[in-house]
Amino acid sequence: MKNFIVLILFVFVSNIYLQTRARTEIQIPDILGYKTLKCDFHIHTVFSDGNVWPTVRAEEAWREGLDAISITDHLEYTPHKEDINLRYNRSSEIAKSHGDELDITVIKGSEITRSMPPGHLNAIFINDADKLKTDKWQDAVAEAVKQNAFIFWNHPGWKAQLKEGKIKMYPEHIDLIERGILKGIEVVNDVDYYPEAFEWALKYDLTIMSNSDIHDPINLYFNFAEHEQRSKTLVFAKDKSEEAIKDALINQRTVVYWKNNLMGSEKYLRPIFDNSISFDKQELSFTGRQTKFIQIKNNSEVDYKLKLVSSSQSVDLPEEITFKGNKIVLFEVRPKKKDQSGKEKIKAVYEIINMKIKPDENMKIEFLFSAEFNPAK
Amino acid sequence: MKNFIVLILFVFVSNIYLQTRARTEIQIPDILGYKTLKCDFHIHTVFSDGNVWPTVRAEEAWREGLDAISITDHLEYTPHKEDINLRYNRSSEIAKSHGDELDITVIKGSEITRSMPPGHLNAIFINDADKLKTDKWQDAVAEAVKQNAFIFWNHPGWKAQLKEGKIKMYPEHIDLIERGILKGIEVVNDVDYYPEAFEWALKYDLTIMSNSDIHDPINLYFNFAEHEQRSKTLVFAKDKSEEAIKDALINQRTVVYWKNNLMGSEKYLRPIFDNSISFDKQELSFTGRQTKFIQIKNNSEVDYKLKLVSSSQSVDLPEEITFKGNKIVLFEVRPKKKDQSGKEKIKAVYEIINMKIKPDENMKIEFLFSAEFNPAK
Amino acid sequence: MKNFIVLILFVFVSNIYLQTRARTEIQIPDILGYKTLKCDFHIHTVFSDGNVWPTVRAEEAWREGLDAISITDHLEYTPHKEDINLRYNRSSEIAKSHGDELDITVIKGSEITRSMPPGHLNAIFINDADKLKTDKWQDAVAEAVKQNAFIFWNHPGWKAQLKEGKIKMYPEHIDLIERGILKGIEVVNDVDYYPEAFEWALKYDLTIMSNSDIHDPINLYFNFAEHEQRSKTLVFAKDKSEEAIKDALINQRTVVYWKNNLMGSEKYLRPIFDNSISFDKQELSFTGRQTKFIQIKNNSEVDYKLKLVSSSQSVDLPEEITFKGNKIVLFEVRPKKKDQSGKEKIKAVYEIINMKIKPDENMKIEFLFSAEFNPAK
Amino acid sequence: MKNFIVLILFVFVSNIYLQTRARTEIQIPDILGYKTLKCDFHIHTVFSDGNVWPTVRAEEAWREGLDAISITDHLEYTPHKEDINLRYNRSSEIAKSHGDELDITVIKGSEITRSMPPGHLNAIFINDADKLKTDKWQDAVAEAVKQNAFIFWNHPGWKAQLKEGKIKMYPEHIDLIERGILKGIEVVNDVDYYPEAFEWALKYDLTIMSNSDIHDPINLYFNFAEHEQRSKTLVFAKDKSEEAIKDALINQRTVVYWKNNLMGSEKYLRPIFDNSISFDKQELSFTGRQTKFIQIKNNSEVDYKLKLVSSSQSVDLPEEITFKGNKIVLFEVRPKKKDQSGKEKIKAVYEIINMKIKPDENMKIEFLFSAEFNPAK
Repeated sequence: MKNFIVLILFVFVSNIYLQTRARTEIQIPDILGYKTLKCDFHIHTVFSDGNVWPTVRAEEAWREGLDAISITDHLEYTPHKEDINLRYNRSSEIAKSHGDELDITVIKGSEITRSMPPGHLNAIFINDADKLKTDKWQDAVAEAVKQNAFIFWNHPGWKAQLKEGKIKMYPEHIDLIERGILKGIEVVNDVDYYPEAFEWALKYDLTIMSNSDIHDPINLYFNFAEHEQRSKTLVFAKDKSEEAIKDALINQRTVVYWKNNLMGSEKYLRPIFDNSISFDKQELSFTGRQTKFIQIKNNSEVDYKLKLVSSSQSVDLPEEITFKGNKIVLFEVRPKKKDQSGKEKIKAVYEIINMKIKPDENMKIEFLFSAEFNPAK
Repeated sequence: MKNFIVLILFVFVSNIYLQTRARTEIQIPDILGYKTLKCDFHIHTVFSDGNVWPTVRAEEAWREGLDAISITDHLEYTPHKEDINLRYNRSSEIAKSHGDELDITVIKGSEITRSMPPGHLNAIFINDADKLKTDKWQDAVAEAVKQNAFIFWNHPGWKAQLKEGKIKMYPEHIDLIERGILKGIEVVNDVDYYPEAFEWALKYDLTIMSNSDIHDPINLYFNFAEHEQRSKTLVFAKDKSEEAIKDALINQRTVVYWKNNLMGSEKYLRPIFDNSISFDKQELSFTGRQTKFIQIKNNSEVDYKLKLVSSSQSVDLPEEITFKGNKIVLFEVRPKKKDQSGKEKIKAVYEIINMKIKPDENMKIEFLFSAEFNPAK
Repeated sequence: MKNFIVLILFVFVSNIYLQTRARTEIQIPDILGYKTLKCDFHIHTVFSDGNVWPTVRAEEAWREGLDAISITDHLEYTPHKEDINLRYNRSSEIAKSHGDELDITVIKGSEITRSMPPGHLNAIFINDADKLKTDKWQDAVAEAVKQNAFIFWNHPGWKAQLKEGKIKMYPEHIDLIERGILKGIEVVNDVDYYPEAFEWALKYDLTIMSNSDIHDPINLYFNFAEHEQRSKTLVFAKDKSEEAIKDALINQRTVVYWKNNLMGSEKYLRPIFDNSISFDKQELSFTGRQTKFIQIKNNSEVDYKLKLVSSSQSVDLPEEITFKGNKIVLFEVRPKKKDQSGKEKIKAVYEIINMKIKPDENMKIEFLFSAEFNPAK
Repeated sequence: MKNFIVLILFVFVSNIYLQTRARTEIQIPDILGYKTLKCDFHIHTVFSDGNVWPTVRAEEAWREGLDAISITDHLEYTPHKEDINLRYNRSSEIAKSHGDELDITVIKGSEITRSMPPGHLNAIFINDADKLKTDKWQDAVAEAVKQNAFIFWNHPGWKAQLKEGKIKMYPEHIDLIERGILKGIEVVNDVDYYPEAFEWALKYDLTIMSNSDIHDPINLYFNFAEHEQRSKTLVFAKDKSEEAIKDALINQRTVVYWKNNLMGSEKYLRPIFDNSISFDKQELSFTGRQTKFIQIKNNSEVDYKLKLVSSSQSVDLPEEITFKGNKIVLFEVRPKKKDQSGKEKIKAVYEIINMKIKPDENMKIEFLFSAEFNPAK
């Protein structure tokens, strides 16, 4: 009978994918000597209220071009417990075994799932999830600290836990922040963005995070065929080891990547943009009101959406332009007057409306190029 | 503490889909007074070696436009048993509760999983899967019969169970067929097609089946964005109740629908084609060698691929033409001679290379139209 | 030598499409006993400043599922005249010969191209475009009237012809309207929508129009692969003959169809919506706060975007929901209280934000269904 | 009146694209110190029997990621001549003015259009097309030679010019080849591939070419939304100047790129493959029959389709695998025996079925990696 099982095991494993498995890389450039890792630190499986076996999470991550994920099943909310033997380390362990095969970093985590305050907290980089199952949430947090976890506040604006419909930071959170325990905050969870959380992240020096909180198969939830995408955290780390990622999280080297938006510190957004974009020329020579084009190449997958803020009085420039992801677009320049002559350094300032450095402030960039004007004949 | 759980349950359930859930209907016409149901009778979940929670199977089916599924977890191969409490009825029951909400028929089944012969058999429409877990496969089959199951042979050409690399029907199968126990056979399993199984289905009057045998999330396995599709069985039934489906299966009212191919009895293929196709005109009037077009509308999603077999000597017709799914295409007709005159009934015979009525025989159709020829001026 | 040319002609014509030519129908239901024709009445070719041969316009129209087009080359702006022999009827005639083969109605038109006022006017259903080439625009208009043309005002909000940046109706337009000469107005031109023109159409009883004003190959301009679409006029006519279309235009039986928006009289918008949508059930029975779903099928290609205006106090309904084109979606209903009992007729009012009956007013619809409440056990 | 025209001209030009114009680069790596240029040397416009204005050809080329095109209108077949003033240099000149704006190289050409033999010949890099319009084709060829043209044979297997249905090289062609006049041959024209032409190219040292021979708007003919693509010639040149391209053509530095196939000399195919592909590791350590994966990254857009020819007896390798374009795929390796031990250099030979170095010979590649075997515990 044992042989029978072994035989079946073998044939199943060898047949599990008749279809090609392919990974599509996420095109965001590396910056500042760091790798730009694409990560999702909030993920569920059948071991709490999710709907997939943990291996699927590593497989999905590999296919989508992610580098690291954290499995964070609820400790307190386990609706499948009638059918699943509750061992809180299992989901991370199972996911990790598949992640190891595919070179995906799988970080052990748990969601400490309580009413507000403090609401839901994720503890990641833990050693033993079982020990976090305590009566009082304070004890769970203390245990996470003991295990050197990185702790962040999940979906602070989640409707179900709002007080009188309003997002709010409680004394409990301030206390955890002041004691150096609560280090990160989800500015984006699922498909929701919380501007207040972004504000707090800046004010309290919290690590900015964006996670999917996915329960279903990822592509049952996000329609990849229509270019929907998982909410992700970009992490700037030396490599994709757990240590390097933890170092990046502790030092706030992260950016939100959500629905074609990048949000976070200008320190990281600026080099992402600069490393994404290149020009075919920076000198233009005009005769009369003839239009000239600068070809602008975007090596990232992000569609950068620009809006003109200010510019030289000599030329007409696009009021709005999108530098489409993985495309080359035309930046049109035309002299305002047909009898202009001489040389000029043109400076144009644009804001990028999908790169936010504060909830209400877009990153600005300057375009510089030389223009030589010759009067029309 | 109970209230806490209830609260969480409520909010989770109410938030589980921030994204729109949408069903795309599968466009195959109804025929002969029956509904054309789109079904998949071979599906796994975490309760055996699958990777999703059973509810996902009903959700996937609803999204893809299926009408009925059967959950058929292995009785003998349960690699997750360290983590899952093995109760063999659970996966069908859980899937059914979600199916009921979405009006998807979920049929209780089990895969009797043995070495060859008889290999793997699915018993569906059973009452109690636990009773099918027996030492001898003959006892499992007998119990299935007792429960009035419909039993079919799974993937008869599965590589792992071939004898010297060859697909083969064993005396055990013949015996089951002769005793009226084995009633169906998978002609398609997963992405594999077995012509021999098609041959046997015709020879032994077995119900032709095509099933996905899906283990992973469906759209992790099939790339819907690139128009891949789940292997399916079309069932011609009075409605989508279990009774009506069972009646159709027992009476062999099924057709394989696999990778843009329809395979089965001409009795069903012909009305599917006839109900899919319409013409804008059937009378053409020519002057000289002028080309005329018949616009052909295909109301189904199937791309019908036609190849000319024989035709009138008066006109040139397309050697090959595809009636694209949900499109209108042009059927070009041109007189061979410029000085032809008079009227003629044109008959053209085409074979449809993706409609198979035998493993080596395509269905043929006749096009009839009237032509009036006028000499070129 | 003549034979040589004939031979070549023959072989070219017979080989012009090795690729399949396919038409995709535009899915908008017929209403009120009329056909819903999909039309574009403002189109250019190489005979003025366009970039394609006129036959291409009929071919494009056929492929995209249009029923009728009008070729409206400029009379006064013909930048290719160094290379093209200017005969103003040619482009319509050439397009029509190809349209006839494909059963596309091609209407002869001209664009009377002047500075503002009156700006650009299209005259369609004309007999002889050459006669419209006059020194004074008033004479061109008079000739068009003589030829029984239908005349409409093109892109009234076109930036290049605005006075101090503002869209404006001039006395010349009012005069033409009062004399019954100017009968239609482009509320949408190219990808631009002019709310003021919509306002004027309602005030002056003008026929509402939406046209592409296309100069380039249509799918060089609109990215069909990313679901962009040509701006179109829906025309409600007895059939697709010129006469029937003219009758519809004169009697204002039109609706704008532009970027997933329908704009025009409620008289036409309401039956379009009603004929697009069907429900699987209208009676719901609840136990406690259990969620129930009505499956809503949208037989049109339009994504209807609904927003809740008012509803019963007994149930929670979606605040926002999109009835996706050619899909079935779930309309969730849940009792607000778990101990409710009895029956109730539920009425919910939604506005459809992409169906405009005035520039600032969306069409509203009512959903009615019966609810039976049973207290939770 | 002049001012009026100027005004209109200005506003038209400034409004011609409200939509974004974007270029998608064709991902094929540079090789051997050359740029890999993507070219199409056989293109028509309204000036012969094509259907677009010449500017469109430069615009289309820019959008699709081409580097250079040649406009080659027929000299002898000009069905639009009733409407177009025939000047044979105009189409290239008009296309070139738009190409210059977009940095697309537009080469002046003509199609010498005769019955077979010699059939149709393209002469490109000419100075004056008018002079090629002669009574005898020999005179046209002589004039092209005088203008230092590069001359190639178009669609040698074109059905309309076959003798008894068979493709054939005539004495006239041999003569032109021997005299160093006919230097290239279309191995692919439109969507047709001629193996015989490939054979002749190898035998007679002709430059291998693949061109679209496009008459319609490119994306009316090829359905880009369904991943169809224009037939193209890859040219390995120092830069994209006319001189550099001519040098490459004369020296046969070209490869066919047609429907995901690359065909030509191994000298160029091999570095294209080598520069497309990278591996994450080349050393594998096994325990028992455990499967290990090498992640293979394909930086080109080509789907390379590999088939196993021979391999080591120690491991199972994929029989078939596709290195998908712009994806990473998994190359599975598994020891055949569970008790194997020791180290081994594994060599596997694959043929790439879509890289042809002869009509009947695929290019082969070798995979080398180190394996360390440890017996299963």
